Amino acid sequence: MNRLGLYNEIKKKQSYLCVGLDTDISRVPKHLLSERDPIFAFNKEIIDATKDHCVAYKPNIAFYEALGPKGWESLEKTMDYIPDNIFTIADAKRGDIGNTSKKYAETFFSYFNFDSVTVAPYMGIDSVSPFLEFDNKWVILLGLTSNKGSDDFQHLVSNGKPLHEHVIEKAQSWGNPNNLMFVLGATHPENFKDLRALAEDYFFLVPGVGAQGGSLSGVSEHGMNDHCGLLVNSSRGIIYAGGDSENFAEVAGQKAKELTQEMGQFL
Amino acid sequence: MNRLGLYNEIKKKQSYLCVGLDTDISRVPKHLLSERDPIFAFNKEIIDATKDHCVAYKPNIAFYEALGPKGWESLEKTMDYIPDNIFTIADAKRGDIGNTSKKYAETFFSYFNFDSVTVAPYMGIDSVSPFLEFDNKWVILLGLTSNKGSDDFQHLVSNGKPLHEHVIEKAQSWGNPNNLMFVLGATHPENFKDLRALAEDYFFLVPGVGAQGGSLSGVSEHGMNDHCGLLVNSSRGIIYAGGDSENFAEVAGQKAKELTQEMGQFL
Repeated sequence: MNRLGLYNEIKKKQSYLCVGLDTDISRVPKHLLSERDPIFAFNKEIIDATKDHCVAYKPNIAFYEALGPKGWESLEKTMDYIPDNIFTIADAKRGDIGNTSKKYAETFFSYFNFDSVTVAPYMGIDSVSPFLEFDNKWVILLGLTSNKGSDDFQHLVSNGKPLHEHVIEKAQSWGNPNNLMFVLGATHPENFKDLRALAEDYFFLVPGVGAQGGSLSGVSEHGMNDHCGLLVNSSRGIIYAGGDSENFAEVAGQKAKELTQEMGQFL
Repeated sequence: MNRLGLYNEIKKKQSYLCVGLDTDISRVPKHLLSERDPIFAFNKEIIDATKDHCVAYKPNIAFYEALGPKGWESLEKTMDYIPDNIFTIADAKRGDIGNTSKKYAETFFSYFNFDSVTVAPYMGIDSVSPFLEFDNKWVILLGLTSNKGSDDFQHLVSNGKPLHEHVIEKAQSWGNPNNLMFVLGATHPENFKDLRALAEDYFFLVPGVGAQGGSLSGVSEHGMNDHCGLLVNSSRGIIYAGGDSENFAEVAGQKAKELTQEMGQFL
């Protein structure tokens, strides 16, 4: 999906919600555990219940990998099931030397047909550029993350700028607003005005709303651009809202709808 | 495997060689392509031919992932086939928020039973610490990598020290020489004296010898400590040395033996 296509979906649905599919077998409701593929059974119901309220799905690859080849199969089925008009993000945080990043790009773009993949910047240009060489595919590069450990290195100041600003500026010489986005955590809403000024036309993927405590309004007020420019993710706050109950998907759909209604005010 | 166990293997074999299993289906000799699992068939022959000359194997996870569930199965079989006295490294460059890093740790330590996994430092403490909580398992944290892009961020100076030094120092407050190593590329041998001074008792995993042009002698002269402290990796320079020939494994074994003989001079 290209940038205009994504923006059109956002306008149509009046939503910039991304639903994180961090599907943990230990949190799948018991009544699904007798299914042949409980992970896919869970995702299928979640997708049915939320697809009208979100513009993106973000499977967290760790949760599929942890189950070995079976988890990989659940991921394949999930990708096949997601409607074509919804943007897909492989939350994989990959990044390695060139020949290896190329393999990761093939995995997520060619094998699984994701629209985008999250990439870690530490190894620099040749760890990122192989992902940028696919038509209509996207790198979502870590900028300022939502976790506690973002304080350890991302704020180290060099030549008057913190590391995450170096990353955001340098990466714009590798990609452009049509193939590159940045991960910027909702747990830093006070920074969004400055972050937006650094990368005016770029989409930001914003995790950390919900379970991690970030603020939707802070991010939306300071972070939007004239093409929306935001994909705000919620994972646990949506998919596990219904707990172990049989109507878990209905509850998830309701949570997604509520977030979307809040988003409508900012669009 | 613990630190003493690894050191004992190094002394016994007079080798600190790690063989990288970057097994690419497009480079597997043709005569193996009719096998049920060509990737495993290739690895099996490489392991048979090199196991007496190396102390570690490092499957590069990207090459297995790129084949979907089948690649994951090839990796499982490879792990089962590697002898118990050889240290195993999942070269995966993972790292994410705590609950997700925990899943990656489960994947590589519990599901596949690797001794260690390479981890990217960008997201800080809670992206690394879940990997440190497993007994007798290791984090191998990216410090100064072997690729061109290592210049982009790893040398940015803040408070008088480049980023990779901040990483090496800070990480020592999270782990210790019994559960933490660092990736330091052989393409920077001039730095090894200073790097060793920063982390005297730690093992360094050193990629970049061979195809990437790094120097074994430079690294060995400046990088060793009194427990050797080095695992020097070669991937393409060993496993593809025999090209498409039927005796590819024999050639790989010979290459591994030559590197090991060179290493014997430094031990």
